Amino acid sequence: MATQKVYVAKDVLLDYCTKIFCAAGMEPEDAVVVADNLVFADLRGMDSHGVMRVPAYTKRLRDGGTLPKSDIEIVRQSPTTAVVDGHNGMGQVVSKFCMELAIDKADKAGVAFVAARGSNHFGMASYFSQMALKHDMIGMVCTSPAAHLLAPTGGIDPILDNNPFSFAIPAGEQFPVVLDMATSVVSRGKIASAKKRGDRIPWDWAMTIDGEPTDDPDLAFDGILLPVGGYKGYGLTVISGVMAAMLSNAALLSRDICDFYTDTDRPQNIGHLFGAIKIDCFCDVPDFKARMDEMVLEIKGSRKAKGVEEIILPGERGYKNYRRNSAEGVPLNETVFNDMNAVAVSYGMEPLKLA
Amino acid sequence: MATQKVYVAKDVLLDYCTKIFCAAGMEPEDAVVVADNLVFADLRGMDSHGVMRVPAYTKRLRDGGTLPKSDIEIVRQSPTTAVVDGHNGMGQVVSKFCMELAIDKADKAGVAFVAARGSNHFGMASYFSQMALKHDMIGMVCTSPAAHLLAPTGGIDPILDNNPFSFAIPAGEQFPVVLDMATSVVSRGKIASAKKRGDRIPWDWAMTIDGEPTDDPDLAFDGILLPVGGYKGYGLTVISGVMAAMLSNAALLSRDICDFYTDTDRPQNIGHLFGAIKIDCFCDVPDFKARMDEMVLEIKGSRKAKGVEEIILPGERGYKNYRRNSAEGVPLNETVFNDMNAVAVSYGMEPLKLA
Repeated sequence: MATQKVYVAKDVLLDYCTKIFCAAGMEPEDAVVVADNLVFADLRGMDSHGVMRVPAYTKRLRDGGTLPKSDIEIVRQSPTTAVVDGHNGMGQVVSKFCMELAIDKADKAGVAFVAARGSNHFGMASYFSQMALKHDMIGMVCTSPAAHLLAPTGGIDPILDNNPFSFAIPAGEQFPVVLDMATSVVSRGKIASAKKRGDRIPWDWAMTIDGEPTDDPDLAFDGILLPVGGYKGYGLTVISGVMAAMLSNAALLSRDICDFYTDTDRPQNIGHLFGAIKIDCFCDVPDFKARMDEMVLEIKGSRKAKGVEEIILPGERGYKNYRRNSAEGVPLNETVFNDMNAVAVSYGMEPLKLA
Repeated sequence: MATQKVYVAKDVLLDYCTKIFCAAGMEPEDAVVVADNLVFADLRGMDSHGVMRVPAYTKRLRDGGTLPKSDIEIVRQSPTTAVVDGHNGMGQVVSKFCMELAIDKADKAGVAFVAARGSNHFGMASYFSQMALKHDMIGMVCTSPAAHLLAPTGGIDPILDNNPFSFAIPAGEQFPVVLDMATSVVSRGKIASAKKRGDRIPWDWAMTIDGEPTDDPDLAFDGILLPVGGYKGYGLTVISGVMAAMLSNAALLSRDICDFYTDTDRPQNIGHLFGAIKIDCFCDVPDFKARMDEMVLEIKGSRKAKGVEEIILPGERGYKNYRRNSAEGVPLNETVFNDMNAVAVSYGMEPLKLA
């Protein structure tokens, strides 16, 4: 199923998405944060968290699950910590506030963690971890359940989610090293794509809702995702969820988890944890960056397996996509482009025309 | 290959191991730290990091790779951070110092990270993360390469290691949640066991030294371990290694990595990062613990797959092993027991007799 791609200039897409979220009731300064988060994901080639989410986010705003205006509140804080209640605002807006707070505290105190509750789906995790990079800090993010996708190892109740987490570490001449991973083997979106194409899927992607092995994308889509690396991925998802939800008292138990796509009229009460470590508390920043560069070059220069063109590091592909797409335009599937336009039109906006 | 087990009372084993490390030149207060770390691993059922390591650790002390007396130095510090140089002392002694420092700083400042260099193999990672628990803190640990075991995804040079990391999070009535994982599918020890038994191994455990797939334990043992979950495990090992080695400037490049077992006359210059988060900066500790208990019970009470007796959480098995083995004696393979005794005898000690 070859999907037609359309290319939209980065600034045009950012401006248009911002206007959509304004039309959905957000203040311009908040709308641009959400738009920037989505466009950034598309620029990095992570389409699953790009503007294809515009319909879902605006549906949540329409249905009252997420509030367009949030009254972000710092509930408790110290020089190195804070708990923030997003009061059901958009996840991106709450999260940007929190990461800025973490960076500000780390700048003064060396390290800081900010825990959020009352938030919502925040888009691509590494959008926030990477905010630390220009401050010569290491950024860390994890997030709590937004759906019932995973079961504990040995179990068949999807009481867990694949709680993504991210680390961003600056380098010098080289690109920063950025890990952004969920704890399932694949996202549910990958199974949806296989379903659309009518392809069988690998047996390690998912099980049926009754806990049986399957390579059928229909059964898998309605079933339970499998954790990456079996019990290790299960362990990672427990830790990521606890770190994101327990310190802030966000939703973590199955009964409190609210599905991003289906429970569009209910607050998600998602939790996140944002961390920042100031490198020059430990060593001189130029030395750190030079060592990072050396490591990157060693890994990239190591012997390749047959048929492999290039060894890449975590975050390298996204970095290169970002540079290319910033220059050449953001590639969007035509259906994604059309769906975004349909949302805009529903708010009385003119559809975006391709140049 | 059924191995005969012998059972040694916890205190007897701790005392005997302490005496061995004293005989190897360590001060009693340092020797007991190493012994406690090894016995704790055996108590939790993690034999691979238990007293079976006595021959290897004492060989390193004999061959001069690790110094029995280390002059631990705080090189740089702030209220929330420190860099510690272990000056080639035993990893356990350096690490306990660092984790205590992190806890002490977190107690005053809320959160803290202590980075170590000039350290050596530190045994079981979760020994240190769990030190945070009794202070009502979350403990975090990661460690840098101690061998050439993994290749980057797409590569066939074993320039990386499976850099273990650990998180320990306290609960209330329930056991603490403790993740302690390496980033390979299995440890090299598991391949060694299969080799001994003459069993084939699963294809996803390792590749040959030329990067070819294999189910042959001999080729795998001399080959390259595969990362858990493919590129996700590769990503995790890069992050864990960078966090452990870059802030402190420990060995991370392939040429600087020194093998624990074979390069016994060379300092390892291992790095670790120890983190502590004080829970009551974020929320009331009893509330946190009650929520942890609720989560543990929900996961344990969820529906089980066919044939599964019990769903367990990260760290639960180790916790239960610890309690049982503390009461009933530490189970050791007879060969491990004999090897430990042989080391003791080589220092002129009486062999340990079974009661």
